[in-house]
Amino acid sequence: MSAPPTAAVLIIGDEILSGRTQDTNLSTLARFLGALGIDVLEARVVGDREGQIVEALNTLRAAHDYVFTTGGIGPTHDDITADCVAKAFGVALPEHPEAVAILERRYGDDFNVARRRMTRIPQGGTLIANPVTDAPGFQIGNVFVMAGVPKIMQAMLEDVAPRLRTGAVVHAVTLRVAGVGEGAVADVLGQAARARRDLSFGSYPFGHGSVGEIGTQLVVRGRDAPAVEEAVGELTAALTVQGISVSRL
Amino acid sequence: MSAPPTAAVLIIGDEILSGRTQDTNLSTLARFLGALGIDVLEARVVGDREGQIVEALNTLRAAHDYVFTTGGIGPTHDDITADCVAKAFGVALPEHPEAVAILERRYGDDFNVARRRMTRIPQGGTLIANPVTDAPGFQIGNVFVMAGVPKIMQAMLEDVAPRLRTGAVVHAVTLRVAGVGEGAVADVLGQAARARRDLSFGSYPFGHGSVGEIGTQLVVRGRDAPAVEEAVGELTAALTVQGISVSRL
Repeated sequence: MSAPPTAAVLIIGDEILSGRTQDTNLSTLARFLGALGIDVLEARVVGDREGQIVEALNTLRAAHDYVFTTGGIGPTHDDITADCVAKAFGVALPEHPEAVAILERRYGDDFNVARRRMTRIPQGGTLIANPVTDAPGFQIGNVFVMAGVPKIMQAMLEDVAPRLRTGAVVHAVTLRVAGVGEGAVADVLGQAARARRDLSFGSYPFGHGSVGEIGTQLVVRGRDAPAVEEAVGELTAALTVQGISVSRL
Repeated sequence: MSAPPTAAVLIIGDEILSGRTQDTNLSTLARFLGALGIDVLEARVVGDREGQIVEALNTLRAAHDYVFTTGGIGPTHDDITADCVAKAFGVALPEHPEAVAILERRYGDDFNVARRRMTRIPQGGTLIANPVTDAPGFQIGNVFVMAGVPKIMQAMLEDVAPRLRTGAVVHAVTLRVAGVGEGAVADVLGQAARARRDLSFGSYPFGHGSVGEIGTQLVVRGRDAPAVEEAVGELTAALTVQGISVSRL
């Protein structure tokens, strides 16, 4: 079995770092890629600054099978992602004839200089379809460049998915432990994690500090579904012995 | 005038990279720090892996005035942030007497081995108060280590704020341009940005691809409030001349 593909996400935009906009693209991408068996191992958020974007692109594309970027491909002066990708790959940034045709169709007489910026695609790149507002994203090498607007980014993923090498999908089971915090289950969970190093065990408290019910969710994850189920059975038994009640979500 | 302080945010946790949990701490931190005149210049999201956390910590603390981390300081086996910070700084990780006293008070007879993990603070670190669940965060050097649970992270910021060197606060004005997309305002906006390189000009489309109203929000930001207001006046005039109607939010 070959190793599962790995990915990094690069979120581009001053509006995320100023707190003006709440990013949701990372979690959308993570869930989408997870369902294809591709592990997102890291993410970075950078501003609309060329040096920072180029450096992050080159670091991430060398370290991972895939890089997915969001943001900075619109028509305004602060949309510099295509320029930065071209610089990172050391290629030119010509207008792509197919992109020009798509936007001529969309804008007609309103196809101005600013909108024409959106047809510039790094040499060697292929377009990613945008069924929402037409202006395409693009792929070059192992880098996929997508819009920042969440519903456009999501729509572009449909055109990206068939291009990806997929891995064995991760099987995850969540257990809900009501009434006790993480500290009460940590020993048992730690033992389970040490006994099964091929799986991953997570622990997430809920309701702390509020008036509602408190408790902890435990998540067991792995690519070998029977092994996950066996570990879940053992973990449930070990907690039950301690008088802690567990339900499966 | 000295340069405004810069900051990086390091979000730690597999649950963010798997898409299981939607991070909100970055935007909370960005807005909180922005109000203090501190610029968040980059953010990274890493998993619960020692090598990755240590490397990110050392890169970010060398590059910025402040680093704020969230996540990985609970009682379970996957909470390894304190270990990683100690390793990054090359210091020991002893139990902090004050932290021990706080958690003894909270847990009494239930103060078990797992909960005791939360009292380990890198040598030389000082505690960050946690009014929600008591287990403290800590500061060492220019690194502030906080909980991942958003309401705890937010509460910890109250104890962090007085320790920060603040900068001149950024003044931001948002203009709403209804009925036209970014492509229609990009030329005027680009001219404004070139004329005023001391300010930052952002452009954010809304309503694209949906049945609702479409339009664009323009944001002018800068530390010199009168200069921002002047630029907003010029931008409004330039758009109005083109028959585009603008309202201030």
